[in-house]
Amino acid sequence: MSVTKAVILLSGGLDSATVLAIARSEGRVCHALSIVYGQRHEVEMQAAKRIATTYGVEEHVIEKLDLRIFGASALTADIDVPKDAVDAPGIPVTYVPARNTIFLALALGFAEARGAQEIWLGVNAVDFSGYPDCRPEFLDAFQQVILRGTRSGIEQGEPRLVAPLISMSKADIIRKGLSLGVDYSLTHSCYDPSPDGLACGHCDSCLLRSRGFREAGVPDPTHYARPS
Amino acid sequence: MSVTKAVILLSGGLDSATVLAIARSEGRVCHALSIVYGQRHEVEMQAAKRIATTYGVEEHVIEKLDLRIFGASALTADIDVPKDAVDAPGIPVTYVPARNTIFLALALGFAEARGAQEIWLGVNAVDFSGYPDCRPEFLDAFQQVILRGTRSGIEQGEPRLVAPLISMSKADIIRKGLSLGVDYSLTHSCYDPSPDGLACGHCDSCLLRSRGFREAGVPDPTHYARPS
Repeated sequence: MSVTKAVILLSGGLDSATVLAIARSEGRVCHALSIVYGQRHEVEMQAAKRIATTYGVEEHVIEKLDLRIFGASALTADIDVPKDAVDAPGIPVTYVPARNTIFLALALGFAEARGAQEIWLGVNAVDFSGYPDCRPEFLDAFQQVILRGTRSGIEQGEPRLVAPLISMSKADIIRKGLSLGVDYSLTHSCYDPSPDGLACGHCDSCLLRSRGFREAGVPDPTHYARPS
Repeated sequence: MSVTKAVILLSGGLDSATVLAIARSEGRVCHALSIVYGQRHEVEMQAAKRIATTYGVEEHVIEKLDLRIFGASALTADIDVPKDAVDAPGIPVTYVPARNTIFLALALGFAEARGAQEIWLGVNAVDFSGYPDCRPEFLDAFQQVILRGTRSGIEQGEPRLVAPLISMSKADIIRKGLSLGVDYSLTHSCYDPSPDGLACGHCDSCLLRSRGFREAGVPDPTHYARPS
């Protein structure tokens, strides 16, 4: 019986942990890829390692690059992370230029090198910060890049992008993860954690996360420095 | 008068040096980006620095990442670089999975962070090694990723990909560069240089280069360890 190999983009957050659990529940052999890009919150990477170990991936590769040399985002430059602004209109300053394009490009290189048929990622276009690279039209365009710009795309029509959370609410994502036994206390979402790794409780990511648990009607295991 | 800012992907090779010269001759303010990805030939990066200095770029940023952890190419793994095989059919083992997608993704992040309206790159689909990510259909697909997946793409329809060499022969590229005063002795093309930086003379890249000078009817300034 042939197995399906999947590269999983694993950030250490709630969404990508759920994606990994779904991929494992569907029998995928998972090659996790985490990307350290000079973000302030390297505590995310510790979470990614915990999750990869817990969910039995085939391998966990960490790629390092430095997006601080480009700057221009609250996550990669000396710009304050906005607080209590999750419902503000427009693309927020936490937007990292081309981040998901860069992540998918690296995942594509990894997938092709490993002969993986799929790339799974936790983008979500419902309870999200309004980033352009989290929307279905972006993923469709990137799929065309794969089909035209790689050996595996031209020869086998692979790898295929899989984004199981794209149209789910955060509450639905949490319910799905809990049904698969995901331990969300292992995950980290905050854009601006304290030096000892506590979630701030007020950035977009914390607010979307805590709202998700509230709407799902389940306890939020997150330790917030200052709960919302 | 407004200036047009351009990010230039600068490898240190013949093609990208010509691209930079063309962009400068057309009045672009150039932000050069070189990517060290664990390739065997770091001598390329010394060439990139020489060229950036010579041609007056606004800044030269070097992004480091390690594609050796993915492997699967003669340029990033312990696989021999083929010699005297430039006319062999198919995609050669020097193909680095998704390399130009990764390079363009990083150039896109850099361009958006700098507010650049253009990204220039030296891909060529005539005298090339048959890599899928050097063809116009790949560039068209990546342009769509830009328009749908970035803030600057959605808001301004930028940056625009510019590939002035895409349908030129190597001889035409060399003639064009010489007409702009490019000093090709500053550039490096070889996939498999000797420890002291001499070009091997027999990899695809050396053979395409020396054939180009021959067809252009001008002397090749390259120092080959073993001329073809």
